[in-house]
Amino acid sequence: MEDYKSTFEKLQELYKERRFTDLRMALLDMEAADIAAFVEENLDEKEQIVFFRLLPKELASDVFVEFGSDTQESLIKAFTDKELKAVIDDMFLDDTVDIIDEMPANVVKRILLATDPEERKTINELLEYPDDSAGSLMTPEFVSLSADMTVDAAFDKIRRTGVNKETIYTCYVTDPRKRLIGVVTVKDLLLAAKDEVIGDIMTTNFISIETLEDKEEVALKFQKYSYLALPVIDKEGCIVGIITVDDAVDVLQEEATEDIQIMAAITPDDKPYLKTSPFKIWLNRAPWLLILMISATFTGLILNTYEGDLSALGGGLGTLLIACVPMMMDSGGNAGSQASVTVTRGIALGELKFKDIFKVMWKELRVGLMLGVTLGLVCFAKLQLVDRLLLGYNYTELISFVISLSLTITVVISKIVGCSLPLLAKKCRLDPAVMASPFITTIVDALSLMIYCNIALALLV
Amino acid sequence: MEDYKSTFEKLQELYKERRFTDLRMALLDMEAADIAAFVEENLDEKEQIVFFRLLPKELASDVFVEFGSDTQESLIKAFTDKELKAVIDDMFLDDTVDIIDEMPANVVKRILLATDPEERKTINELLEYPDDSAGSLMTPEFVSLSADMTVDAAFDKIRRTGVNKETIYTCYVTDPRKRLIGVVTVKDLLLAAKDEVIGDIMTTNFISIETLEDKEEVALKFQKYSYLALPVIDKEGCIVGIITVDDAVDVLQEEATEDIQIMAAITPDDKPYLKTSPFKIWLNRAPWLLILMISATFTGLILNTYEGDLSALGGGLGTLLIACVPMMMDSGGNAGSQASVTVTRGIALGELKFKDIFKVMWKELRVGLMLGVTLGLVCFAKLQLVDRLLLGYNYTELISFVISLSLTITVVISKIVGCSLPLLAKKCRLDPAVMASPFITTIVDALSLMIYCNIALALLV
Repeated sequence: MEDYKSTFEKLQELYKERRFTDLRMALLDMEAADIAAFVEENLDEKEQIVFFRLLPKELASDVFVEFGSDTQESLIKAFTDKELKAVIDDMFLDDTVDIIDEMPANVVKRILLATDPEERKTINELLEYPDDSAGSLMTPEFVSLSADMTVDAAFDKIRRTGVNKETIYTCYVTDPRKRLIGVVTVKDLLLAAKDEVIGDIMTTNFISIETLEDKEEVALKFQKYSYLALPVIDKEGCIVGIITVDDAVDVLQEEATEDIQIMAAITPDDKPYLKTSPFKIWLNRAPWLLILMISATFTGLILNTYEGDLSALGGGLGTLLIACVPMMMDSGGNAGSQASVTVTRGIALGELKFKDIFKVMWKELRVGLMLGVTLGLVCFAKLQLVDRLLLGYNYTELISFVISLSLTITVVISKIVGCSLPLLAKKCRLDPAVMASPFITTIVDALSLMIYCNIALALLV
Repeated sequence: MEDYKSTFEKLQELYKERRFTDLRMALLDMEAADIAAFVEENLDEKEQIVFFRLLPKELASDVFVEFGSDTQESLIKAFTDKELKAVIDDMFLDDTVDIIDEMPANVVKRILLATDPEERKTINELLEYPDDSAGSLMTPEFVSLSADMTVDAAFDKIRRTGVNKETIYTCYVTDPRKRLIGVVTVKDLLLAAKDEVIGDIMTTNFISIETLEDKEEVALKFQKYSYLALPVIDKEGCIVGIITVDDAVDVLQEEATEDIQIMAAITPDDKPYLKTSPFKIWLNRAPWLLILMISATFTGLILNTYEGDLSALGGGLGTLLIACVPMMMDSGGNAGSQASVTVTRGIALGELKFKDIFKVMWKELRVGLMLGVTLGLVCFAKLQLVDRLLLGYNYTELISFVISLSLTITVVISKIVGCSLPLLAKKCRLDPAVMASPFITTIVDALSLMIYCNIALALLV
């Protein structure tokens, strides 16, 4: 961290003192991601374009890709056509497509005008894939070989065409109709004799991805099989692109963030927090808070309905029972989210499917009983020892029993509801995370209140 | 999915019919991870060892690494010493260390006896790194080159020693004292002339990792810089191992799962849900539920304290106010977790640091005011239009105003508490996720209740 800071200070200094040759030398020693972070954190819009023009040519595109979309947009607007073309030409096509996805129409038009006709065609094809599909992640820049090449000829081709490919370490062997028939790694090539034929050393049982496959599934495949790149094939079995592991890593992180946001009742947003405007944050949070507020008033109505009956019990009994309402509702809500969040994460990791629902419910039933009894016993002991003996409240054995029994039943039911809703949501093609929490809390709040009040009225009247 | 199922059925059939030659052929076409899944899901303990012995030799170790630790343990117990040695010899050292970490002492002893003395020394060194450090993730099996080698000589060395290295695509250039002085990729080597000297084409500004660096930070470096492997160096600057991107992917997923579990009040556990016993699940969940139950009783006490005063207001006012308690507490809790979860995820992604606390609080103050006013207005309108006009409850303008004002203040305070606690936790070296939720809920519940009751008593008496 200290290192990082002092590097930034050094850059500031060189920039302010206009020692541009030294600045360039310092930049050459840095990672593109760090340079981008420096520019965005320390320079205003006007300085950013001046600084960008100082970047060594070979670094410009790499740094540009690392910027947030706001910075990219303002830079593109400041670029001359020639500058824009130079940056775009040096970028991988999947990055160009990602940038285009975020830009307003007039900027997109400029970017497309800066590309060659053939590139433009490919970009337009890539833009047509749905946002969450494998097609939207892939790049068409890979090394293809033919099965009758020798190892030596393969190396020649890699040397000739490899500079601009996103990865050269996995090469794809195609037949004349571009159908993918095998995969060969540079490691295989290095360990083979120079005159061996690719067809003899390639692997024919390869994992591949279909263009319309969900990108979350794609990312899980990377995690499961530990590949550096996977080929994407169309319906005819032709290879149309590859996806590299760094894109898969980004997807895994985005999906985890998205699930966490949804579980916290926030509309997902992939922009970093500090770069999101308060208005946008308000927009992402307000609808959920409103929905949950309204649904909580129903819980209030339930409480209201029973309160009269409970107060009518006399002897301050109503007050004793109402004091335990927050504990009852919270415990139910917490027990329910424990189950629902566990199951939702299991679904996201590919460990749980709808077919497992009975296994899951059976397990949660047992866990719920154990937890329910534990909580019930502790609650009973606490009411008797602390509230009754120590604090002098009139919690008789019967009242304590009613409260503890309600707690046990609430926990068990919360677990069952909590574990099954995300799986049902998945089955109905809804997002399981929406179910995980806090909807569970709202549902379970109402349930626990009804269980509690009914048991109390049945046993105490 | 269908494919997958039919492959498994085919394997079952071949195995049951004892057509072992065909079975081997079928297995050779499969990924190790899929074979492991088949064995664990479809065969009992006795069948597993029989099946494992049928595996083609070159696949055995790859499949073994993919098993869960229970299966690994039972297989090791069934192995002869010779079988164990064959499996261990074929494994990468970091995988061996991971397995040893999970095994009971007697099994560990057998594994260590099956390794060569030199390997055993390295394993023991690796075992000494703390569980969450870079050292525990790394493998010492990498390709090292010296700066005075030619490209041709480098390729020779890669060919000779590369078979057993976890990656050959990034090679590490060291001086005679093993200090890391540069990095060169196979791509660089392929694009260079054969007689060029490594020292001239290597990169000297490389990202490296220290042995004791937190593995979460390591994983974030992979995400930030998109490398396939990063070198790990000790205090003297000597390279002691490398970490590959697939290990980083696993860490990112584990950390996300861990955070999600903690936020749902569960002690983190990296075992898949279906393989965790109900008792273990109980153990991971019960303490949290108990703590939260006890802390909720304090909220109950607060409610109790004020209830008398509220009831004393007369005219059914107490009942009207109490009916809004769940809505008040839930909205506060939800508003608080939105902020705390957002900040916690920002910390995990490396976007937010403690130094940002004032920026964050200022943003949340603005967002909180906007949200608070929104919720307050909707609440006021709802009380007037629905509860008063439609349902006939006696919510006067003044009562509705008191409730709405309390709601607004509750939301603002919840946001401020929610956003600052995770950052403070981080500063105190506690896990921010513990603060994120549901502790926030408990704290905010109590706060919102006090705000509500005090405002009500101040304005309505």
